[in-house]
Amino acid sequence: APDFNPDVHPHRRFNPLLGEYVLVSPHRANRPWQGQVEEPQKSDKPQYDPKCYLCPGNARTSGHNNPEYTSVYTFPNDFAAVLPPPLPEVQPAGHPLLKIQPVDGACDVVVFHPRHDLTLARLKTEEIVNVVDEWCRIYRERGCQDNIKYVQIFENKGAMMGCSNPHPHGQAWSTSSIPNIPAKELESLAQYSTSEAVSPATAPKGPNGRPCLLCDYAHLEASEASSVRTVFKNEDWIAVVPWWAIWPFEILLLPHRRHIPSVLDLTPDEKGSLANIISKITIRYDNLFSCSFPYSMGLHQRPTPNSNTSSGGPHDEHDVAHMHFHFEPPLLRSSTVRKFLVGYELMAEPQRDLTPEQAASRLRACSDVHYLDGAS
Amino acid sequence: APDFNPDVHPHRRFNPLLGEYVLVSPHRANRPWQGQVEEPQKSDKPQYDPKCYLCPGNARTSGHNNPEYTSVYTFPNDFAAVLPPPLPEVQPAGHPLLKIQPVDGACDVVVFHPRHDLTLARLKTEEIVNVVDEWCRIYRERGCQDNIKYVQIFENKGAMMGCSNPHPHGQAWSTSSIPNIPAKELESLAQYSTSEAVSPATAPKGPNGRPCLLCDYAHLEASEASSVRTVFKNEDWIAVVPWWAIWPFEILLLPHRRHIPSVLDLTPDEKGSLANIISKITIRYDNLFSCSFPYSMGLHQRPTPNSNTSSGGPHDEHDVAHMHFHFEPPLLRSSTVRKFLVGYELMAEPQRDLTPEQAASRLRACSDVHYLDGAS
Ligand SMILES: O=P(O)(O)O[C@H]1O[C@H](CO)[C@@H](O)[C@H](O)[C@H]1O
Ligand SMILES: O=P(O)(O)O[C@H]1O[C@H](CO)[C@@H](O)[C@H](O)[C@H]1O
Repeated sequence: APDFNPDVHPHRRFNPLLGEYVLVSPHRANRPWQGQVEEPQKSDKPQYDPKCYLCPGNARTSGHNNPEYTSVYTFPNDFAAVLPPPLPEVQPAGHPLLKIQPVDGACDVVVFHPRHDLTLARLKTEEIVNVVDEWCRIYRERGCQDNIKYVQIFENKGAMMGCSNPHPHGQAWSTSSIPNIPAKELESLAQYSTSEAVSPATAPKGPNGRPCLLCDYAHLEASEASSVRTVFKNEDWIAVVPWWAIWPFEILLLPHRRHIPSVLDLTPDEKGSLANIISKITIRYDNLFSCSFPYSMGLHQRPTPNSNTSSGGPHDEHDVAHMHFHFEPPLLRSSTVRKFLVGYELMAEPQRDLTPEQAASRLRACSDVHYLDGAS
Repeated sequence: APDFNPDVHPHRRFNPLLGEYVLVSPHRANRPWQGQVEEPQKSDKPQYDPKCYLCPGNARTSGHNNPEYTSVYTFPNDFAAVLPPPLPEVQPAGHPLLKIQPVDGACDVVVFHPRHDLTLARLKTEEIVNVVDEWCRIYRERGCQDNIKYVQIFENKGAMMGCSNPHPHGQAWSTSSIPNIPAKELESLAQYSTSEAVSPATAPKGPNGRPCLLCDYAHLEASEASSVRTVFKNEDWIAVVPWWAIWPFEILLLPHRRHIPSVLDLTPDEKGSLANIISKITIRYDNLFSCSFPYSMGLHQRPTPNSNTSSGGPHDEHDVAHMHFHFEPPLLRSSTVRKFLVGYELMAEPQRDLTPEQAASRLRACSDVHYLDGAS
């Protein structure tokens, strides 16, 4: 009998952040295809589009005009999914199986750059630092509002990921409750910190010197001789295709040198190195299939100070958070062939067709000079 | 201050099967759109396509030829995500955060009908009964294999849902482990059955006369005077847009008259009424936007007898399962405008733009004569 080879034999991997499995089917990469084929995205966008509601000076649906901004620019979403208080008190629906909860908050749109035709992969590192600074400002300001418990910063990039406007932008939805996924992650981080986890002495530690799941994981990936899942690493940050990745070229980006609960804890150097690694991985993404690579990106970090229910002590319950970014891109085989997470994935469990190690090795092999800038 | 109105004011609803919230933003239905617009699917498919690997008599990638089948037809997937045993023994990856698990099993393709141009919505009820019978056969036969613990029956319909071939077909993936989502649902059902849930005397009961979460929910929706979330109901089955629906026109289809763990427990009458309601709801789906409505569908039921770890007693631990179907369709506003579950949904929690009650009312208002059959 042959030896087990994770690049060949199906198996399941465990995601310790969500407590869920992913089915890995590395033998399944070559299948016939009679279904949807998207057109490759064109790279011929104008620098300014008079019809774009995000370009400087243009009118938005709300009737407001954007200022002639020159760097990042944030405004409240004209079609916010949550609304500011006060809202009428939620009425119970009259049956224990019809559970309902109030929610309020605010949705912000964060425009990364005045130019309509750019993306994070096409920005200079200094320009990405401006975006990081803006994330800090939003997290701080929304977090000061009494009602806000969580600020979810994210980006949908590309029509394939439901982005309704190609002008480079992300969003920040701030809510009076901690959403499902960050809540589940916090639970896992809290559990790990009080467990008897075998955390190496050299790994950074969480609050009160306790082990941190993500510090341990980052340390493991950063120190592993072979670095099989590493896409890029700098002095502060590491980008890996995580052991438990669902999307073909998913990336987990996190600090590996010290425990960092939120963007407010970043030093200026760490902001610079964060901008550096965001640039490196988004360029590699574009280079992988020579296209503007679509993805959804999300930043998980500490809930806001208002969310804190414990008191006293040098740390609060939410300092177990270790900030990190998830990049979840749909493409699988080319700029037009994506992975669909559908029937089995929606009904049973996620399934992937190549191993995280194979994906990381392909991303590592990509140049960090953008294909549109390459000498020809 | 105005009264709380769930059709107007944002709120969160709780899914008791998964223990998760969905964010409901009913005020958010009218937003501008500059992104992806799909072409309406054409309805001009041939009855037989010589290039289709599912049509009768045609060759498959494996080199095998399909028989000249005249009803349903099942064969093992030529690109199965899981493989039959024996597989080499899984080697631990050497770190507690790199958890790996063996998996084996089989993937079957279930062709619903010889005709290339039909779908469940275009089949006669008797023809859908054949599909139900085939699900029973697969569940029974795969469930007899020692290694199989769960049989996940599902259908991806439409290119938008990653279906690689329009010939009407579904799949059945049988695995040596219970996948994440059915496992989580079983946990919730088991918890509910031992809780002090206030189950009305008239509601059907689970094993040992204990309350069943889904019997109680079906009973609640079936008996509610207003039936606000009901799309269609017959003597045995009810189709609702559930209180906790994520997808715009999501449907939960389940038995409301008695507790039914799996397809093997269905009477011939219940198979007939199941085929009837599947026909009614898929026709309504097609009529909603006058197109072949895409969706992913999945059947959740009892794990196979092999999965049973308890013994003795009239019931085993998995009899808490109450069989049901989830229909998860992406369309939101027309045959070309879908809901994207992306950034916020992938990173934080699902968000929907109309209430389940609004969706149910629109589906109820659709004719149950298919638009292609309608008199003109
Ligand atoms: O097996 P198919 O139809 O080729 O593939 C489809 O369904 C599978 C199960 O949901 C998914 O993993 C694939 O991404 C999807 O394209
Ligand atoms: O807010 P946008 O960009 O218009 O909308 C996009 O992102 C939202 C948050 O992930 C989703 O709910 C929408 O379905 C998607 O189209």
